[in-house]
Amino acid sequence: MSTAADVHFFPRLTIEQVEEGHELAPKFDEHGLMPCVTTAAATGEVLMLGYMNAEALKRTILTGEAHYYSRSRKTLWHKGATSRLVQKVVDLRIDDDQDAIWLRVEVAGDASCHVGYRSCFYRSIPTGDEGATGALRFEEHEKTFDPKAVYGDAPNPTIL
Amino acid sequence: MSTAADVHFFPRLTIEQVEEGHELAPKFDEHGLMPCVTTAAATGEVLMLGYMNAEALKRTILTGEAHYYSRSRKTLWHKGATSRLVQKVVDLRIDDDQDAIWLRVEVAGDASCHVGYRSCFYRSIPTGDEGATGALRFEEHEKTFDPKAVYGDAPNPTIL
Repeated sequence: MSTAADVHFFPRLTIEQVEEGHELAPKFDEHGLMPCVTTAAATGEVLMLGYMNAEALKRTILTGEAHYYSRSRKTLWHKGATSRLVQKVVDLRIDDDQDAIWLRVEVAGDASCHVGYRSCFYRSIPTGDEGATGALRFEEHEKTFDPKAVYGDAPNPTIL
Repeated sequence: MSTAADVHFFPRLTIEQVEEGHELAPKFDEHGLMPCVTTAAATGEVLMLGYMNAEALKRTILTGEAHYYSRSRKTLWHKGATSRLVQKVVDLRIDDDQDAIWLRVEVAGDASCHVGYRSCFYRSIPTGDEGATGALRFEEHEKTFDPKAVYGDAPNPTIL
């Protein structure tokens, strides 16, 4: 069985190679991370924006299940290990300059947000003068699951 | 007419306020930026992942047109100012801990990528052992526009 160590990343040599080539040559930031957009394969809804380090990207490639790096817990994070809301990868994309990932996933229960909503993006900002007041609108009105029941007393990952 | 200075951000006081409240209290990173996922309103396709500073977020809110911060050019970036591929915001969302934005946009010509493709995410990584070789697959086979004709000799934003 392959391990994460077996996944090959190419060195970044030229802009043409990175943008127009067939070689996976990802660029991680100064913290060793890249952002990952995760959408629901069925609906196109953005569920979350997470971060991957090299290990998380390699494990996602090998297993077909979303792995992230948790910035609050400072550890590799197999999404769903606690909540059982595992994200099965339907499509794994990388962007033009290879510093961002897009995952299309199927997720048990169709929920991905630690607050209990389906999507982490459950609030909108109106545009125009109304938005200028800084008032948010809720776009989801009911939680999909009870975070207390799922996560118990685990520390909240939100950092002020 | 309102200006960006008039857009109000609330201070971040408690996790409950940030996650469950109606107050826009965005968190920018140590570079003053937050990631922004931009999807095509019609199809749900992820077009790009950009970054916003406070000014870009405020201008996006006020004008209903996507503004970003260009990390390569180190400047506020009204998307489409050069290419005329302006992104009209249909829905502007913020995530649970208010450190990421999701824009659903309509875009002239349905193209958003500086390389000429519709989406910046025009290549996929196969999962499993095939992906372990580091070989990318093209998911878009034709460019939507000619970047040379649109951008001329402007420097390529990709950083190796």
